[in-house]
Amino acid sequence: MTQLSPAWIAVDWGTSNLRAWAMAADGTVLAEADSPEGMGKLARDGFEPALLRLIGPWLERKPPVVACGMVGSRQGWVEAPYRSVPCPPLDRGGLIAAPTTDPRLAVSIAPGLMQARPADVMRGEETQIAGVLRLLPGYDGVLCLPGTHSKWAQVSAGEVVSFQTFMTGELFALLSEASVLRHGMQGATGRDDAAFDTGVSDALSRPERLGARLFSLRAEGLIAGLSPDAARARLSGLLIGTELAGAKPYWLGQRVTLVGAEKLSAAYARALAAQGIAAERMNATDCTLAGLAALAPESEAAR
Amino acid sequence: MTQLSPAWIAVDWGTSNLRAWAMAADGTVLAEADSPEGMGKLARDGFEPALLRLIGPWLERKPPVVACGMVGSRQGWVEAPYRSVPCPPLDRGGLIAAPTTDPRLAVSIAPGLMQARPADVMRGEETQIAGVLRLLPGYDGVLCLPGTHSKWAQVSAGEVVSFQTFMTGELFALLSEASVLRHGMQGATGRDDAAFDTGVSDALSRPERLGARLFSLRAEGLIAGLSPDAARARLSGLLIGTELAGAKPYWLGQRVTLVGAEKLSAAYARALAAQGIAAERMNATDCTLAGLAALAPESEAAR
Repeated sequence: MTQLSPAWIAVDWGTSNLRAWAMAADGTVLAEADSPEGMGKLARDGFEPALLRLIGPWLERKPPVVACGMVGSRQGWVEAPYRSVPCPPLDRGGLIAAPTTDPRLAVSIAPGLMQARPADVMRGEETQIAGVLRLLPGYDGVLCLPGTHSKWAQVSAGEVVSFQTFMTGELFALLSEASVLRHGMQGATGRDDAAFDTGVSDALSRPERLGARLFSLRAEGLIAGLSPDAARARLSGLLIGTELAGAKPYWLGQRVTLVGAEKLSAAYARALAAQGIAAERMNATDCTLAGLAALAPESEAAR
Repeated sequence: MTQLSPAWIAVDWGTSNLRAWAMAADGTVLAEADSPEGMGKLARDGFEPALLRLIGPWLERKPPVVACGMVGSRQGWVEAPYRSVPCPPLDRGGLIAAPTTDPRLAVSIAPGLMQARPADVMRGEETQIAGVLRLLPGYDGVLCLPGTHSKWAQVSAGEVVSFQTFMTGELFALLSEASVLRHGMQGATGRDDAAFDTGVSDALSRPERLGARLFSLRAEGLIAGLSPDAARARLSGLLIGTELAGAKPYWLGQRVTLVGAEKLSAAYARALAAQGIAAERMNATDCTLAGLAALAPESEAAR
């Protein structure tokens, strides 16, 4: 394993995965590493060993570690209590120190955000939002962070004003892998833009018909030869379209920036374009690292 | 095992279960039996042995067997091709004989219904609809058959005019048992009518917000102490309310009759009552048996 002397270490620790980056003081990534030891697989005393297995070779000069994500939840390493919106997405004063036994480790965990009404929470996305504000100083508008639990956030004057979460990605996974619809999607290999567009359009014009349109995918597979690619693409379109219908107060007439995985962001951009919204797109990892950099003591000079 | 001499045998053979009734010529149920050997667990050559295990003791006088449900699907014992609406729900001419080797067995399978546009299919519910038409002669109005895949059917002049399927029951199962929402529903034991009503009302007034309202159940559990009973009841209300929003052209200003399991039908009746619809309720098994009786040769006298 390579010996490195990073100025600090960035960690994105979600439910399913653990990712770490060895960072230079100027923001350069010296190395990165990841493991499947997500929060969901670890008991409280399993976090420190899991982190040491991943970043042990980087710790010789005791660089500070800054982490975001579900690692700070009640079931995580240590709870970092939510901060309430409206507020800046991150605040160094909200950092929580994780309990460690290895003298080389000093780990700070960023808290998530909560909103009282409508009740909502996020952990991890607040760091990406902070990153957007560093990369696009003075950003005023809406951020959409698509994923398992897609987030829409209104950002103004350096603060998250409000946000809303949609279970779109989780619904897609459940319906395409665990419901009766999976039978009609077996062997799906490619895109079908026309089917996606139809799904988006159908959902936006009559969102209340979702439950019926879902079963239509099954019925058309049985009696009208709907292909697996078309069924899967239309399911994606129906769910993203339903999300856009519900999130309309966020995006209508607004500046919208997408922060997420490339293919998924492209699908959202396509759906928004059909509504006349030219959304900007930013790389999710870039935003995560920029957000964590705002919390790293050693990177003061870089800001 | 008891020796019986039924005039005919009724069989409801779905994806998950197999149920059979030994019937007298006058429609009296002499005995009933069920097994978990549903269509989904059987290969093509497994149907006859499964049926013999269940009804062997009733076959001494070779009573005809009439079956409905997924047993007639492409993956079933033998495919009974769909009939297209508009048409009467059942037609003796559409019966398909199952291939058997035991000389005591003569099995007829009822076909399901299909609709070309919007594409839709049913197998099993057509028999319950036929049963309603026998039990309520001249019925003109709408039938709602709630379940895993809820069906709404427009019935007039003895025919199914149109129908639509909603994946409500399957969505409830997936979300309450396999999604992030399950964490907030562990230990749910009872009803919460107020939470159910809120869910129905929210969904009917703003159906496009479903994806966001689902995640609110999680967020309220984390930050506002939402109880498992309330979370589960509101999820049920949100999904049934979304179905009612989509099915509004079916029920608005119509005579509505519910055919389904008792608790589920009660929930639908409660949701419809809040919209000013006093739905009638019928027992699903009574309707299945009345529908199969219309197909049984030995029950001619009873009709």
